[in-house]
Amino acid sequence: MLLTDRWLLIDESLKCAVFAKVFYICGNSRLSDDKIRRDYMCPATGSGGAIAVIRLSGSQSFDICDKIFFPLDKNIKLADHKGFTVIYGDIRSGEEIIDDVLVSIFRAPHSYTGENSVEISSHASPYIRQKILELLIQSGALPAQPGEFTQRAFMNGKMDLSQAEAVADIVASSTRSAHRVAINQMRGGFSAEIEKLRSGLLNFASLIELELDFGEEDVEFADRNELKVIISKVKGVAENLAKSFLVGNVIKNGIPVAIIGKPNSGKSTLLNTLLKEDKAIVSEIPGTTRDTIEDTIVIDGIEFRFIDTAGLRETTDVIEMMGIKKTHEKIDQASVIMLIDEVTDDAALINERAAAIRRMISGSGKRLLIVINKVDLSDPERVSELEKEILTSGTDVLLFISAKANYGLDQVRSALGEVVEKEKLNSDEVIITNIRHYDALLKVTESLARIEEGLGNNIPEDLIAIDLRHAIHYLGEITGEITTDELLGNIFRNFCIGK
Amino acid sequence: MLLTDRWLLIDESLKCAVFAKVFYICGNSRLSDDKIRRDYMCPATGSGGAIAVIRLSGSQSFDICDKIFFPLDKNIKLADHKGFTVIYGDIRSGEEIIDDVLVSIFRAPHSYTGENSVEISSHASPYIRQKILELLIQSGALPAQPGEFTQRAFMNGKMDLSQAEAVADIVASSTRSAHRVAINQMRGGFSAEIEKLRSGLLNFASLIELELDFGEEDVEFADRNELKVIISKVKGVAENLAKSFLVGNVIKNGIPVAIIGKPNSGKSTLLNTLLKEDKAIVSEIPGTTRDTIEDTIVIDGIEFRFIDTAGLRETTDVIEMMGIKKTHEKIDQASVIMLIDEVTDDAALINERAAAIRRMISGSGKRLLIVINKVDLSDPERVSELEKEILTSGTDVLLFISAKANYGLDQVRSALGEVVEKEKLNSDEVIITNIRHYDALLKVTESLARIEEGLGNNIPEDLIAIDLRHAIHYLGEITGEITTDELLGNIFRNFCIGK
Repeated sequence: MLLTDRWLLIDESLKCAVFAKVFYICGNSRLSDDKIRRDYMCPATGSGGAIAVIRLSGSQSFDICDKIFFPLDKNIKLADHKGFTVIYGDIRSGEEIIDDVLVSIFRAPHSYTGENSVEISSHASPYIRQKILELLIQSGALPAQPGEFTQRAFMNGKMDLSQAEAVADIVASSTRSAHRVAINQMRGGFSAEIEKLRSGLLNFASLIELELDFGEEDVEFADRNELKVIISKVKGVAENLAKSFLVGNVIKNGIPVAIIGKPNSGKSTLLNTLLKEDKAIVSEIPGTTRDTIEDTIVIDGIEFRFIDTAGLRETTDVIEMMGIKKTHEKIDQASVIMLIDEVTDDAALINERAAAIRRMISGSGKRLLIVINKVDLSDPERVSELEKEILTSGTDVLLFISAKANYGLDQVRSALGEVVEKEKLNSDEVIITNIRHYDALLKVTESLARIEEGLGNNIPEDLIAIDLRHAIHYLGEITGEITTDELLGNIFRNFCIGK
Repeated sequence: MLLTDRWLLIDESLKCAVFAKVFYICGNSRLSDDKIRRDYMCPATGSGGAIAVIRLSGSQSFDICDKIFFPLDKNIKLADHKGFTVIYGDIRSGEEIIDDVLVSIFRAPHSYTGENSVEISSHASPYIRQKILELLIQSGALPAQPGEFTQRAFMNGKMDLSQAEAVADIVASSTRSAHRVAINQMRGGFSAEIEKLRSGLLNFASLIELELDFGEEDVEFADRNELKVIISKVKGVAENLAKSFLVGNVIKNGIPVAIIGKPNSGKSTLLNTLLKEDKAIVSEIPGTTRDTIEDTIVIDGIEFRFIDTAGLRETTDVIEMMGIKKTHEKIDQASVIMLIDEVTDDAALINERAAAIRRMISGSGKRLLIVINKVDLSDPERVSELEKEILTSGTDVLLFISAKANYGLDQVRSALGEVVEKEKLNSDEVIITNIRHYDALLKVTESLARIEEGLGNNIPEDLIAIDLRHAIHYLGEITGEITTDELLGNIFRNFCIGK
C-alpha cells in the first residue's frame, strides 16, 4: 500500500490533530509583533540625482500623509483614491510650501509590504528630503530600520524568508549571473524546491507521529521501505542544493585571484591592463558610472577579485618572492593563482616556482595559471623552446603574453573564465548563494543520513521521528516557516535603508 | 486721456498688426527643435538606496516601454492605461527577467515635460539600472542630457525659463531660505513680477511703434508724461529686483567668513566648536546624512562659509599674522571678518589690528567682528577693562568668549546671523538669486534710464523705441520668451542628469 493511500484511510479529524501536532513540534510560526501596528517611513532612493522617493507603510499611512500633502484637487483624501494611482500636489509645513510632489498610493494587501503604502516622489534636495521626513515623524510615522519594508512583506506573508533575502542580493548584485540567481530566488524558485522537500517529509512525519500516538498497539502506518526511498530522494536533492553553494558562492562573491611573481615580472602592468580593458567594456551611458569595487573584472558575468594588489603596485618591491609569508597567505585566500614569469627566465627556475605552488594547492581544487610575460622582448624560437620545457600538470594552464604590448590578454581572460562551471550558470537549475541556507541544508542532510542509517538498523520510530522533526525544522528555517527574532534581526540588519 | 483709453480707440486689426510687429522686433520666439520628436530617458535617482527610478519622455514612450515591460495583466498596453496610474510587472530582456518593477504613466500634456512620460521604479542594483537603460536604448530611446526633462517642460510651455532655472536651484538648495526662494521662483512668483513689467512696457511700445508707422503725420499716440510715469515705475521695480540679488546671492551661495588672528589665539578651537554644534543641531534620521560642505554652518536658514580654514588647523602656524598676502586675500573674499584675539592681549595691539582691517574693508559693506577669546583664563575686571579700551566703529561687534569652555558661542552665532537683512528673508517679496537675471535686470534699468533721460530732452520716438525694445527684450530673456540655443545650452548644461 502506498503512503498516500494509507494517509487517505485516516479519519479527517485525526488528520487535523496529527498535522496540528506536527506543525507544533516542528515549530511553524509567524511572528506577530507590536511593531507591525505602527507606520514606518524612510528615504528609498540614494542621495544625489534629480528626484527622491520616500516610502511610508502601515495602516495609517494615508491619514499621516494627508496631514502634510495637499493635492491639487483639494477635496479628495488619499484614502478615497484607488490603489496604483498617482496624485499631484504639494507638501506643506503649515503655510510654507516644501515641494511639488507626486504621491503614489498602494492599498493593502496590494502593496510591497502588504500594508497601505505611500511613495512620495519629491525633488532630490537634501533640505526637502529632511523636511518631509521631519513632517512625517511629526504626523505620527516612525523612522524605518534597514530592511523594514521587506521584513513587513515577510511578516504579512507577501514573500517567504528566502525570497526576502533575495531582495537584498538583487540590490547588491553587480554581475549578470549574481543578478540572475537572486531574481530566480526572489521569484520563489528556491522556495518551491524547499517546499517540495518539506511537504514530502511532512506527510511522512505525520504518519510516524501517528505511530507514536498508537505506540502500544504496534501499528506501522509508514512503510519502512517507502520511507527509505523518500528519505534517499529528499537527501539527494538537499545534497545537490548544498553542493550548488560552491558555484553560488562564486557567483555571489566572485573568484579570488592571486597574482604571484618575482619583482619586475610585469604583475602590475598585467593587472592594470586587465582592469583598464574591463572598464572600457562597460558601456558609457550618462549618469551610470558602474559602482566597481577596486581591482575586480567581470568575465562572462562572473566577478574575479584580485587579492592584495596593493603590493603589486609598489615599484620598490625587491623582496625575494617565494617562501614569504605574505605570498603563502595570498595563495591560501585565492581560488586561482597566476604565476607571472618572464620569457627570459630560466625554464628550470619557472618549473621550480610552479612546483612549489602546486605543492601548496594540492588537493584544494585551486587552479594554477602559469603566465610567461614580455614575449615581445624575445623571438618565437625562445617561446616554443619554453613551451616544451615548462611542465604543466592536471588543470594547469600555460600562457605566453605581453602585458605591455597588450598581447595574449584575451587568452588570460578566457583561461580565467574557464575556471567556472559554465553549465550551471546558464541552466535554470536552482543555485544557492546564501551561507545560511547552506548551513541549514547541511543539517537537513545530516538528519536524513541518520534516519537512513537508523532504518538499516531497524531503530524505533521515536528516534526516527526526532530526526525527521529536525530535517523539517531546518527546511522550515530556510523559507522562514520557523523564525526567531534573532534570526530575523540578523537577516534584515544587513539590508539597506529603504528596502 | 489715459494710455489705455488711447489703446482702446485703435482698430482691432491694427492692434494685431502692431502687436505682431512688436513681438517680431522684440524677438518673441519658442524653439522648435528636431530633438523634441525623439524619446529620451535616463536615471532620475542617485546611486545607492533601495529603489531606482528611470524616466522616459517623448511621444513614443509608451510603445518603447511596452517592448521591455510585461505587466501582470498581459493584455493591456501602456497606451491604454489612464494617466497617473501605476502598473506592476517585469522588465525582460528576451526570456530573461531583469526585475519586478512599477511603471507610472503620465499622458501628454499632463506630465512634467508635457509629453507622454513613463517612470520605471526598479530595485536599485547597478546591474539592473544599466540593463534597463540598455534595453530602452535598444528599443529606440536616446540617453537624456542633463536638464533634458526640464528643458522639454520649458519647450512645451509647461514652465518659463526662470521657473526651469528654479528647478535646478531647488535640487541644489541645502538651507531653508535658499529653498524658499527657489520654490517661490519655481511656482512663478518671479515670472509674474517680470510679466507685469513687460506687459506695461509692451503696451507702450505698441503705441510708440504706431507713432513710427504714422511718423509723417506727426501724431502722438503715447502721452509723454504718462510714459515718464510708467518708465519710472517699471525702472523702480526693476532696480529693486536687481538690488534683491545682494540678499539673493547670500541666500543661494552663503556668506563668506574669514577668521583672522595671531597664532594660538584659538581660531581653530572656535571654528571646530561652531561646526560641531551645528552638526549636532541637524536631526539624526537614519539614512539622511546631511550633505554638508566642509566648514559651513547654518544660522537662521543662512549658510556661513568659513574660507581658507585649512591653515587654521595647522598647529604649527607661527608666521606673523598681519601684512601677509594670504590674510589680505582672505579679507578680500569675505563678507564678514572675525578678528580673534586673547583676553590677555594688550588693548592697544588689538585696536591696531582692528584698525588695519577696518582700513582694508572701508566702504565695502564688509563687517568686522572683534572676538576676544579665552575669557576663562582671566577675571571679570580684565574683561570690563578691555570692554572700555577696545574701540569699535560703525557696525563692528565686540564679543568676549571662551571657545574652549563653550562660553559665548551663542553670541557669535547671533552676531553672524545679524549680518543678514532678516526682513527680506521672511517676507513674500520676490528675491532674485540668479546672476543671469541680475545681468538682464541691470540692462533693463540702463535702457529705461536712457529713455527717462531722453524724454527729458524730447528725443524723437525712434530712439525711444530702440531703448524700449531693448528693455522688453531683456525682460523676455529672463522668462525665456526670447531664447537662443546657446543660452539654453548654458542653462541646462548645469542641471543634473535626470531632471
